[in-house]
Amino acid sequence: MKLIRFRNGSEVKPGVIIDNEMYDTSSFGEDYDEKFFGHGGLARLKQFVNDKRNELTKLSADVSLESPIARPSKIICIGLNYIDHARETNATPPSEPVIFLKSTSALCGPNDDVVMPKNSKKTDWEVELAVVIEKKASYVDEANAMDYVAGYCLHNDISEREFQLERGGTWDKGKGCDTFAPLGPFVATKDEIADVGNLRLWLKLNGEMMQDGTTANLIFNVPFVVAYVSQYMTLLPGDIISTGTPAGVGLGMNPQMYLKEGDVMELGIDGLGTSKQTVRAYTAQ
Amino acid sequence: MKLIRFRNGSEVKPGVIIDNEMYDTSSFGEDYDEKFFGHGGLARLKQFVNDKRNELTKLSADVSLESPIARPSKIICIGLNYIDHARETNATPPSEPVIFLKSTSALCGPNDDVVMPKNSKKTDWEVELAVVIEKKASYVDEANAMDYVAGYCLHNDISEREFQLERGGTWDKGKGCDTFAPLGPFVATKDEIADVGNLRLWLKLNGEMMQDGTTANLIFNVPFVVAYVSQYMTLLPGDIISTGTPAGVGLGMNPQMYLKEGDVMELGIDGLGTSKQTVRAYTAQ
Repeated sequence: MKLIRFRNGSEVKPGVIIDNEMYDTSSFGEDYDEKFFGHGGLARLKQFVNDKRNELTKLSADVSLESPIARPSKIICIGLNYIDHARETNATPPSEPVIFLKSTSALCGPNDDVVMPKNSKKTDWEVELAVVIEKKASYVDEANAMDYVAGYCLHNDISEREFQLERGGTWDKGKGCDTFAPLGPFVATKDEIADVGNLRLWLKLNGEMMQDGTTANLIFNVPFVVAYVSQYMTLLPGDIISTGTPAGVGLGMNPQMYLKEGDVMELGIDGLGTSKQTVRAYTAQ
Repeated sequence: MKLIRFRNGSEVKPGVIIDNEMYDTSSFGEDYDEKFFGHGGLARLKQFVNDKRNELTKLSADVSLESPIARPSKIICIGLNYIDHARETNATPPSEPVIFLKSTSALCGPNDDVVMPKNSKKTDWEVELAVVIEKKASYVDEANAMDYVAGYCLHNDISEREFQLERGGTWDKGKGCDTFAPLGPFVATKDEIADVGNLRLWLKLNGEMMQDGTTANLIFNVPFVVAYVSQYMTLLPGDIISTGTPAGVGLGMNPQMYLKEGDVMELGIDGLGTSKQTVRAYTAQ
């Protein structure tokens, strides 16, 4: 199953993708949030879609997509989780996962504009595989970790490198700006992805391939990461773990290269669709 | 006004404190969450309490308190914000605020047990003044910052120092464990606190005074911090900013000293009440 959320005036509504067409599932009566995932929502939605498929309203292909899940309790990110990315940033590859948190107010739709914050000089891109949690997970074993996973989606972990690395805080200062977490287009339930450890992920800037990696090169793979994070904090249904980015970010270029107004990022992961964001400068509203 | 939340069987209900007595305000029909704060809830609740005061049910003094606000979008913490604490941890006092995030799943009631996570050797205490945001705040000026503040409460920013500092991640790894954010007993609205820049805050461990500071020694004061954080991420109604801890934590002792099972922490801030947590070891449930 592929879950989407879309805008309808000022409302956000849930939907699904079936055979490449998008359908409104708001008659199911639940948003894709902590309560949905935590109360068997995926199984109930699947039954609902099977039963009502012919009654669902098809959506226009140009519908405006929101984040495919409602704002979760937390977005946990794994840093430096591809050896080539650790090397390009002159960081030592970690001996255990680096964890940081991304402000949940950074979430936005997969094709929304990315806004460079005021005074930003170093806004950067990072294509990532994001994992969506289905069940409350505390101290889970790697062997059982996949039982707690609802599915996966595409994430651009936008980062302001000066805020992240040169402003005397933790990385969080450069990771949580508004629009810094374009998510989607959809959540694919885990049954849709044959091998999450072997997916190509890529990002193009203005049509030029900048990142072209594979999840086969993750230092710490998905079940390891889920189990690991659950030793430090309880994962709640709908929570997101973003698993890190492969080489090819602006910080790793020589000379370094950052986003500017009008730039267009396109990114994708095998089986998880593509997204596209235009960069714009902050303007007071 | 002083807001509380309390447990009633498996439910959590809102209440207020009037003349040192606690009253149930669940008939108001709103929890103290983002929607409440963001839609003029404080003014409406004040009117409701004025109108209905004689009809409100008084609560027993031994009622079990929850966090006085519902889970917010984020808990932002300011690190090393008292010069004496920066010195005791051998850190350079920061030239601008250190920001990190605390997992919102760490929130608990003011008198709940604090659970040392599995394999913890260095669980530590930190009494802090927490600020509760009332209105959405993005790029606000220091001069106007207090317009965005709902009120204040007492927070124990529990920290696992090995996870925070020795495990190759950001500080977030040692700050977000379950029960690591005892909050309350109540939120005092800002009109209740004459001068937030001159409050004594203290913490006793097993009856012995460990921290005894004043918010007059904050390196970056409340309006500065609110304005500063709003440059990096939009603050949403109900969000918490915890402003840092004064000297006297276990990490700063010589030799260092950490919590053990059965330890009792008592803490308080002028005008914001006191809380008390007993430490226990993690046991599988």
